[in-house]
Amino acid sequence: MATAALETTDTRTRLIEAAVDLFTRHSFAGTSLQMIADELGFTKAAIYHHFRTREQLLAAVLEPILDELRTIVDSAETRRTAHSRAEHMLSGYAALTVRNRGLVAVLAADPSVAAVLIERAEWGDLIKRQLALLADVDPGPAGEVKAAMVFAGMAGAAGPTWGTFDDAALQEHLVDAGRRTLGLRAPRRS
Amino acid sequence: MATAALETTDTRTRLIEAAVDLFTRHSFAGTSLQMIADELGFTKAAIYHHFRTREQLLAAVLEPILDELRTIVDSAETRRTAHSRAEHMLSGYAALTVRNRGLVAVLAADPSVAAVLIERAEWGDLIKRQLALLADVDPGPAGEVKAAMVFAGMAGAAGPTWGTFDDAALQEHLVDAGRRTLGLRAPRRS
Repeated sequence: MATAALETTDTRTRLIEAAVDLFTRHSFAGTSLQMIADELGFTKAAIYHHFRTREQLLAAVLEPILDELRTIVDSAETRRTAHSRAEHMLSGYAALTVRNRGLVAVLAADPSVAAVLIERAEWGDLIKRQLALLADVDPGPAGEVKAAMVFAGMAGAAGPTWGTFDDAALQEHLVDAGRRTLGLRAPRRS
Repeated sequence: MATAALETTDTRTRLIEAAVDLFTRHSFAGTSLQMIADELGFTKAAIYHHFRTREQLLAAVLEPILDELRTIVDSAETRRTAHSRAEHMLSGYAALTVRNRGLVAVLAADPSVAAVLIERAEWGDLIKRQLALLADVDPGPAGEVKAAMVFAGMAGAAGPTWGTFDDAALQEHLVDAGRRTLGLRAPRRS
């Protein structure tokens, strides 16, 4: 029994890892359960045991990221000023993006995922709260455009496509670029 | 003959329009020729008459955009200073993005398209020249990260997902946000 449980956990983890890799390369809509089965040498039946639909697999892939994002958003919203809320959101999102290269691009820039995010109210609401935290430094359309640029731009810059940066440098540069975009000053060191 | 030629042109145009719409919503990899056929009430044979593969259809969709981008890149590269080259690239890309909402996101942020762009040397090279023009204001990794943020961020902000802005306002805000990100001053009016 213990061995079977362990195998089940292991299979689930391998399925999620293969899904992340394929979603990142082929987009969510371009990845079928069959492709994931082929990648791992599994039967489709083995996958169905864990995930009935591709949307369930997407949820399993994104939920850890969205949980982290929720923690950052919740914490940012408690800050006193619009600037400190944006600063907290920005640095948290940069760290999340660097820890989950490529996968955050699936969340923020894959058009086939955007459709799913909007449909799932709790996901769409979370992204809207994130965008509001970034936009409220400069309320109105200018601030909204800057927030959208930071949201999609950081994800794209951390993606694997056009360059490779080491994690620490990438995170520092992302925060710096995001601050410039939003018009935030670097916080004073205490 | 004239009528047949006209119908052929019209069918090709309708195929491309349907492809743009579906690529924008479902990603390139998530759109099959069958889906495009269904959308238009065509048979797959009718599509094969115009496009043998999905990659040929992607090329037909992206080529007008890439031609415009090439004109902007060529022109920007003739400018004298890194700042004026970046300024020209930035404002040209913002205008291109606004004129082709959603579709530039397919170009800049769809992971399944990135793979095709990299494989087609003349496309990949063009994007690299664009990124270099944006990055050279601040040579090194910091500039590369900012360039990647502008490239993916502008495309994402102009996409249909998270907000709707009128064209003129969007273009102005994109240029302003891009200048902030790259550290460019607004050019003096002459």
